[in-house]
Order: sequence, then C-alpha cells, then structure tokens
Amino acid sequence: MSRTVYVNGDYLPEEDAKISIFDRSFLMADGVYEVTSVLGGKLIDFDGHAKRLERSLNELEMQKPEAFDDLLEIHRELVRANDIVDGMIYLQVSRGSAGDRDFAYPDASVKPTLVLFTQSKPGMADSPMAKTGMKVISIEDARWGRRDIKTVQLLYPSMGKMMAKAAGCDDAWLVEDGFVTEGTSNNAYIVKGDTIITRQLSNDILHGITRAAVLRFAREAQMKVEERSFTIDEAQDADEAYITSASTFVMPVVELDGKAIGTGKPGTVAARLREIYLEESRKAAI
Amino acid sequence: MSRTVYVNGDYLPEEDAKISIFDRSFLMADGVYEVTSVLGGKLIDFDGHAKRLERSLNELEMQKPEAFDDLLEIHRELVRANDIVDGMIYLQVSRGSAGDRDFAYPDASVKPTLVLFTQSKPGMADSPMAKTGMKVISIEDARWGRRDIKTVQLLYPSMGKMMAKAAGCDDAWLVEDGFVTEGTSNNAYIVKGDTIITRQLSNDILHGITRAAVLRFAREAQMKVEERSFTIDEAQDADEAYITSASTFVMPVVELDGKAIGTGKPGTVAARLREIYLEESRKAAI
Repeated sequence: MSRTVYVNGDYLPEEDAKISIFDRSFLMADGVYEVTSVLGGKLIDFDGHAKRLERSLNELEMQKPEAFDDLLEIHRELVRANDIVDGMIYLQVSRGSAGDRDFAYPDASVKPTLVLFTQSKPGMADSPMAKTGMKVISIEDARWGRRDIKTVQLLYPSMGKMMAKAAGCDDAWLVEDGFVTEGTSNNAYIVKGDTIITRQLSNDILHGITRAAVLRFAREAQMKVEERSFTIDEAQDADEAYITSASTFVMPVVELDGKAIGTGKPGTVAARLREIYLEESRKAAI
Repeated sequence: MSRTVYVNGDYLPEEDAKISIFDRSFLMADGVYEVTSVLGGKLIDFDGHAKRLERSLNELEMQKPEAFDDLLEIHRELVRANDIVDGMIYLQVSRGSAGDRDFAYPDASVKPTLVLFTQSKPGMADSPMAKTGMKVISIEDARWGRRDIKTVQLLYPSMGKMMAKAAGCDDAWLVEDGFVTEGTSNNAYIVKGDTIITRQLSNDILHGITRAAVLRFAREAQMKVEERSFTIDEAQDADEAYITSASTFVMPVVELDGKAIGTGKPGTVAARLREIYLEESRKAAI
C-alpha cells in the first residue's frame, strides 16, 4: 500500500511527492530534519523534537515553515492515515526553492519546504538486537564542525554505515583528536563500574533528545553520570557500552573494533535504561 | 522565458523539473556536481569537468548515470535550447531514490538521478569585478574532510557567503589550523614578488579545473609557482591575490579582513593570467 506523505500543506500518495530540482536541500544540503518515534500509535518526545527543530532553524537563520504550529496535528494525521502502530515520522525543513541556484540565501518571500513521511516498524521496541547487542568499528570523524545542528549533510554518516557493513559490523563510532564524538546517527556511552560516561554537549555532537531523557532517567535512578570525552582504548576496557537514538532507544554495544566489551554480552545498565526509557516514554507519549 | 532543463533523460520546462522527496541528494546530501562555463556558445574545459565528475563518483562508489557518455551532447542541447551565449551549465548526479530513507546505499538496481540546467550570464567574461577586485573576509573552515570530492554538501560555503555579505564583502577565505585552504567556491592564490603561491592539492581542497589550467598557463609563461599553504598574515602582506573558479575564471582579490592587499587595486599577474586563461579557453572551447 502506498504511503500518504506530507509536502508543503498537501497530503499525497508517496509516488506523487516531489520537490523542485532547485530546492536548496537538493542542491546545497540546506535543510534540517527530525525523526520522531511512534510506539502504540503515539508520539515519543514530540516536544523535544519540535524544540530542537526550532533551534536548528534559528542557528541557520532559516524561516519556520508556516505550518510550524500545526506540526503535532500533521504528525498525528500521518500516523492515522498510514495506520502506524510502531515506527518513525521523518520531518525535513529545507530553505526552499528560489527557482535557481545561488549560494546566497534567498529573500524572505521564498518559503521553506516542509516534508514529512512515515516509516512503519511493527514491534520496533522488541528489536532482537537489544538482546544480542551491536558490533561497531571506529572511524575518523570527518564531518563538518556544527554537528549540533541537525542538518541533512549525512553523506559521511552514510559512508560510515557502509564501512561498518563492509567490516561485518552494525555501525561506526566517530573519533576526533583521539576521542569518540558519537555514533553515525546516535550518541555513544560507556559504563565503567557504577559510572555512565558520555561525551559532554558542544558543537561536536548532536544534542540527542533520547540522550537527554536517558541521562535524566539514569540520574533519577541514582546512577552516576560523567559527561566527558573518552577514547577507543577506554571504551574497549569498559564494562559495557551502548548507544541512544530516537529510533533505537537504548541499544547495547558488545564489540568495538573486533574486541569484546565487558563480557561480550549486553550489559545490565543498558538493559535497565532501555526498560526505564521505554516505560517512561510510553507513559508520556502523546 | 522558461528554461529547458534535463532530468533523467527528459528535456522539460523548469517548472516541471521535479525529483522525489526520497532522492538521496535531498535527504542526505548524497550527490556530486560540476559547473561548466559557456563562452560564445561553446563549453570551457568540458573534458576536465567530465573527468572530475567520474572521479567524484568513483570516490563515493556511486554509479555512473546511464547517460554518462552522452553528457557532451546533453550540454550542447541545453546550450542550444536555451540560447546560451555566455553562462554556466550545472550538472548534478545523485545516488537516486530507493523510495524510502536509509543510511545504507541502495542496491545497484537503483539508478542515479541526473539533473542539468543552464544559467545565462551575458558578458560573463567582462565582469566589472575583474576591474575593481573582490573584498574577502577570513572565516574558520568548518567543512567536512573530503573537499576533494565535489559533493553538494554546500551549506557551510553558503553560510560563508552570507557572513561575507554581512561584512560588506564579496566572499570568504577558509582557514584551517592557521592556513588558508581555499575560498567558499574557488581556489585562493597570493603573489609575492615573482612567485604565485597556492595551496598544494590534497583532500583539504577542491582540485579546481580552472586551477589546473591557470597554473599550466602560468608555468608556460615562465612565472614561478609554489604549491604550498599560506597564512592570512602572509596573504595580507602579499603583492596581490586572486581566486580561480569555472565561473569567475581569474578574479583579483584586493582586500582581506579589511586590509588592502598590495596597492589595493587588481594586480598585474592576476590581470595577465585572466587574459591568457580567457584567450586559451575560448580557443580550446568545444
């Protein structure tokens, strides 16, 4: 069955969802995005994603799409129209099309492009990988300098996933100046003793919505959290490791560059955080 | 009058030139491009651009579009259909659309998207700026690590042009670890005494087609060329400065971060190289 998607005010069959070749996201990667998860037909942390979207737009001096205040309704309509029980809703705002190509931003009369579509993932919260854990490789972090802005400049993360795949692994952790920044599309964590360690917020990493929630739950559960950089050596020597993202929630990492982390099996901290996160998120879903 | 543009085998009015919202250039900046200049209705250095396109595709393990061997004919047809005397032809290859969003590259059955369009610039070779010179500012180079691949990840260059505009200038030179890499969409040069200095080729800069031609002409004219990094201080202390790109040819730079370079007027080396480049390029145009 064809999905119903949203493009600039219209709900369309996905085959008809097109944008101009002059759209600035197509020509210049001049766009930002968000991915919101759906569990049991409800949106997980919608407010967090809407706030981060607003921040990304502000950082790039990009106009808010006219439908900004209707985003919740548009998300809900897409969930309904596509019978989404579990899955994701992808949203992208592009600076729009001025009908030609120019490095300079167009004037304010050029309206941003707003696109949303769904991805159905039945049973997403019961991913088998949560039981087996992920294998990751480390690669150089060759991305641009403003990873705190969630832009569509995703070619290097995409290349990183392909490098991981070629190495028989599931994902890559990015390393800059000797320290892990994050995963290709997720935040990275290690656990040593009773302490959770994850990189501090800065322009170097995405300010994960799931990261914020998981750290809050961890502190509420009296776990110790250190926000600081760590190396691959320290990660390989950790008791456990995991990632967080809107679509994987909390996912254990059991191998890094061919070396088992801890017992080589998913750890108890990751398992507990995943359970708390899913339970609390389902409760707060809208 | 509406332009005729090319999209995946079809010549279309520009208003009808659309691509899927699932195209990977739109969602992930997974595309590469070239801009070829037209002077007197003929293509400047078409072979250089075609070769660099092929290299970009190879570096990203991207398929060649089916029409790769017909690119010259497509360029010529667009020149003809749009009555281009002087101007540019923009070409983009995207990894295409697999009908959904996924970081992993789609399988080989998904064909790349090929888009071309023209920009008419009558009298482009007689730009008034060649007589007055450009003013540039310096900004941090925050781009990704593979600038040798001509990808559509142009958000930071676009931001740089806007920063320059806000400062009352024409462009920005990018600085990394204390050394100039290049301009936002051009290669950067300084002249000290009888020596032309420009950054050596590496992954840090675009391997300019115009750069290669201008350096060849300079050497043929017995000018001294040093390919090495230089700082903003050295540039401000130079006798002259200029940039090269496919659409600006050789363009003098007369001010850097508010400081006049040399006499503050376009220099003789830049003027001579511009003249030689235009003359030789017109002769070799096809």
